Amino acid sequence: MIDRLIDRIMELKNPTVVGLDPRLGMIPDHVKEAAYAKYGKTLEGAAEAFLQFNKAIIDAVCDLVPAVKPQIAMYETLGAAGMQAFIETVRYAKEKGMIVIGDIKRSDIASTAEAYATAHIGATDVEGDTFSAFDEDMITLNPYLGSDSIQPFFKTMRAFDRGMFVLCKTSNPGGGEFQDLLVDGMPLYEKVGLRIEAWGEEFRGKYGFSDVGAVVGATYPEQGVRLRALLPHTFFLVPGYGAQGATARDLAGCFNADGIGAIVNSSRGIIGAWQSAKYKERFTPEEFALASRAAVIDMQKDLWGALHA
Amino acid sequence: MIDRLIDRIMELKNPTVVGLDPRLGMIPDHVKEAAYAKYGKTLEGAAEAFLQFNKAIIDAVCDLVPAVKPQIAMYETLGAAGMQAFIETVRYAKEKGMIVIGDIKRSDIASTAEAYATAHIGATDVEGDTFSAFDEDMITLNPYLGSDSIQPFFKTMRAFDRGMFVLCKTSNPGGGEFQDLLVDGMPLYEKVGLRIEAWGEEFRGKYGFSDVGAVVGATYPEQGVRLRALLPHTFFLVPGYGAQGATARDLAGCFNADGIGAIVNSSRGIIGAWQSAKYKERFTPEEFALASRAAVIDMQKDLWGALHA
Repeated sequence: MIDRLIDRIMELKNPTVVGLDPRLGMIPDHVKEAAYAKYGKTLEGAAEAFLQFNKAIIDAVCDLVPAVKPQIAMYETLGAAGMQAFIETVRYAKEKGMIVIGDIKRSDIASTAEAYATAHIGATDVEGDTFSAFDEDMITLNPYLGSDSIQPFFKTMRAFDRGMFVLCKTSNPGGGEFQDLLVDGMPLYEKVGLRIEAWGEEFRGKYGFSDVGAVVGATYPEQGVRLRALLPHTFFLVPGYGAQGATARDLAGCFNADGIGAIVNSSRGIIGAWQSAKYKERFTPEEFALASRAAVIDMQKDLWGALHA
Repeated sequence: MIDRLIDRIMELKNPTVVGLDPRLGMIPDHVKEAAYAKYGKTLEGAAEAFLQFNKAIIDAVCDLVPAVKPQIAMYETLGAAGMQAFIETVRYAKEKGMIVIGDIKRSDIASTAEAYATAHIGATDVEGDTFSAFDEDMITLNPYLGSDSIQPFFKTMRAFDRGMFVLCKTSNPGGGEFQDLLVDGMPLYEKVGLRIEAWGEEFRGKYGFSDVGAVVGATYPEQGVRLRALLPHTFFLVPGYGAQGATARDLAGCFNADGIGAIVNSSRGIIGAWQSAKYKERFTPEEFALASRAAVIDMQKDLWGALHA
């Protein structure tokens, strides 16, 4: 799986992923009104607004960006209708040639972890017929429960050629509260990182990176540099660019000298571009997807420039 | 919230919770056939089987057990239809007077954590109308991302009188891989436990316990004893009884001398009772819910006996 992601990053010269984390306040009125006209001002109506908003953005950026990362929490606020909008977003992005990283941060043990694997990167068996319920290409996972909460995903990951990013060092201000605690002189997140590197050993592809990646927040540049050196076969998913304050220079350390090694997420900075000071003069609310496209182009230039300076 | 749970535990003399973690292999044929007849051998058919199975068990045990704990992973294997079955299970159990603990183990930061709070223990605003999407009474959360992944839940928790159990020490064999690492001579799970105790300070009720509980696996008895002493205001959710190998004596240490302090989960041992060696002679597959009732009665006796010996 990781080879497909890196191939596409190289092809587009763009190591970025668009976070599809919609909220109603971010969706232009004309999209919402059309959705409410069909389903009412209900969870179903809001879910339809999410889906149409996402589809327009996917249409506008799919030739420029290798991947999208829908954040499932936003869809859960809309109950089962929101889950259906998530599933249809995944399907649509894949139809448009994009790789989908489900930002689900799930964690559980044994057969429960297997159920999450089945749900998100595998297929459910109903009396001999199989159904891929969520069908993401890659997912994010939380490692607090240890190896036997991650390993149950491997069989499904291999069978369906999927991948994962395990939380290592997160981008939030409080991320260090437990992750930075020193264990034998080494911060916990480095211990976790070393486990991630080891889990990936059997899943390495042609670039030397494995299907078991790590989430490494861009808000801590020196930690990114250190982890890049410590985990040479682990690909990074890097949140924190833009809205969370990290610049392209901050996160250059997450990449190798050849400019490979990470994919950088931006959510609000892309999908909310039409509302931002930078783009709102140039685009009307009806042109929200074009504003996203402009923001994607600017982000690619910013990142590519910092990586190939 | 925690007062309501403890009141009900005292009233029923039963500190147990039934884990509603169905799989198709655990559901009797007659329930499945009826569901497939309505919706086909599809995710929708399987979801209907989950729901009818759950409802029968809820009917059979709601006068004996204070709470149910549906494990959302099982429902996610069935996509949006499964999520709808989860939501309807929550609603039905509450109608029958039960407290519902959503075993969701979510974790994320800032506004994403707020979205999970809105989805599971709050209400979503759609143009002024509000909808409680999942509507559990209490939920489980993962603490790896630190305080700013837990605190975003507090406002909603207070406004809607809900509660949470944060993972502290889990019951799986690999739970200690990160959780037992020593930080300044103290295992990480105790550090996490102390934070849970502190988070709960403003949420204490009449029994001295707070709405911010901890998940403490029963498979490590001595750790339960130590955590019970270290976290005097933190109520425990204890998995691991029965199928995972822990006995009533193993987990007695999670309770105070007065027999209060924890609620013990059993999933397969109750909902799969009709298939087990112990009950299958006494009950036909059609009587699966009665087998669950018998298993609940036996578990109550076992636990109550160990706590009040």
